[in-house]
Amino acid sequence: MRLRNVKNAQEILDSCAFLIKNPKEYKGKYKDLFANNNPICLEIGMGKGDFIKQMAQNYPNINFIGVEKMTSILARAIQNLTPCHLPNVKVMRVDALELQQIFSCEISTIYLNFSDPWPKSRHAKRRLTSEIFLNIYDDIFKDTKTIIQKTDNVPLFESSIISLTNHGYKIEDISLDLHQTPKENYMTEYEKKFAKENIKINYLKATKK
Amino acid sequence: MRLRNVKNAQEILDSCAFLIKNPKEYKGKYKDLFANNNPICLEIGMGKGDFIKQMAQNYPNINFIGVEKMTSILARAIQNLTPCHLPNVKVMRVDALELQQIFSCEISTIYLNFSDPWPKSRHAKRRLTSEIFLNIYDDIFKDTKTIIQKTDNVPLFESSIISLTNHGYKIEDISLDLHQTPKENYMTEYEKKFAKENIKINYLKATKK
Repeated sequence: MRLRNVKNAQEILDSCAFLIKNPKEYKGKYKDLFANNNPICLEIGMGKGDFIKQMAQNYPNINFIGVEKMTSILARAIQNLTPCHLPNVKVMRVDALELQQIFSCEISTIYLNFSDPWPKSRHAKRRLTSEIFLNIYDDIFKDTKTIIQKTDNVPLFESSIISLTNHGYKIEDISLDLHQTPKENYMTEYEKKFAKENIKINYLKATKK
Repeated sequence: MRLRNVKNAQEILDSCAFLIKNPKEYKGKYKDLFANNNPICLEIGMGKGDFIKQMAQNYPNINFIGVEKMTSILARAIQNLTPCHLPNVKVMRVDALELQQIFSCEISTIYLNFSDPWPKSRHAKRRLTSEIFLNIYDDIFKDTKTIIQKTDNVPLFESSIISLTNHGYKIEDISLDLHQTPKENYMTEYEKKFAKENIKINYLKATKK
């Protein structure tokens, strides 16, 4: 997501108690960090954190880690999450390309909400459902791999379906108009805006054994 | 498709030279019927035959068999196809549930164009991409299984993606708005009407090794 520069963004990160400052040190030990054996889910590209906030509030027995590479965006998410005091939420400032160095077979579900569509063919590798990223995710998932994607962007959704099914994923659930489908759904800040404009949201849940 | 009763429908079938009147007799021997080794493709539910006509004209080295269970509809298709004298087209009046008795590992591609969506959950088994039909198709495909589907019906398309990928198919190509996608496309009679009304057409190509 695009965001104006946040003043003192680095200071906000530095003083955040639930920011994982040295994520590589916890590789294979994230359950110790959360001090429980609950499933650990990632949201890659967490925006302002509205999705992870609602998920963590509604699923206290699941741990959530918000991954964001932009300092300004992460600072905004931290400001949003701090007042909630959610013990099952952590965040980290990393690029998704580094995830193999950070996690080892310990993630249950990856959420991809309104990811950058990278519309040009020559940038297709940068999409978070490209073969490059699916290979990275293979190494960080615990057992059954589950990816849940929401996007308003049709070409991204189409390329995700092709990429996922060619990488061994099955589509367990899909909707081409999520807001007209009776299904539990926690909206991101983007999504609330789209809903007002009646923009159709595409949703899929893909799993790989 | 719905169609007013065609007068003399049975007579039209009886006098058709390219109607396969006893399809079970050719099981495993369809290449003899066409007198060549070209690939054999099926369209299940051929409507008035516009799609198969265009495909057969454009791909003379591929054989096409149109499958239709309703006598009236098949009669209309025969009237449409007869003046074209296409040596690579045959038709048969059968129910898709019987296909295992008719073909044995000899089909290259199955086309499903604007199939009945059977919207009620209790009728889901009747959809031409349900598990029941995918099991039938497994027995009639030659080697790589290829199913190409077009539909304006979103719930049918969603359920097809789930059913196909859970049956081992990969999605090789997909479009949620076929008429805005640069791709070779021969329109059915239904589809031409939809195109005029700007109704979005969903398309997928699924393969299973």
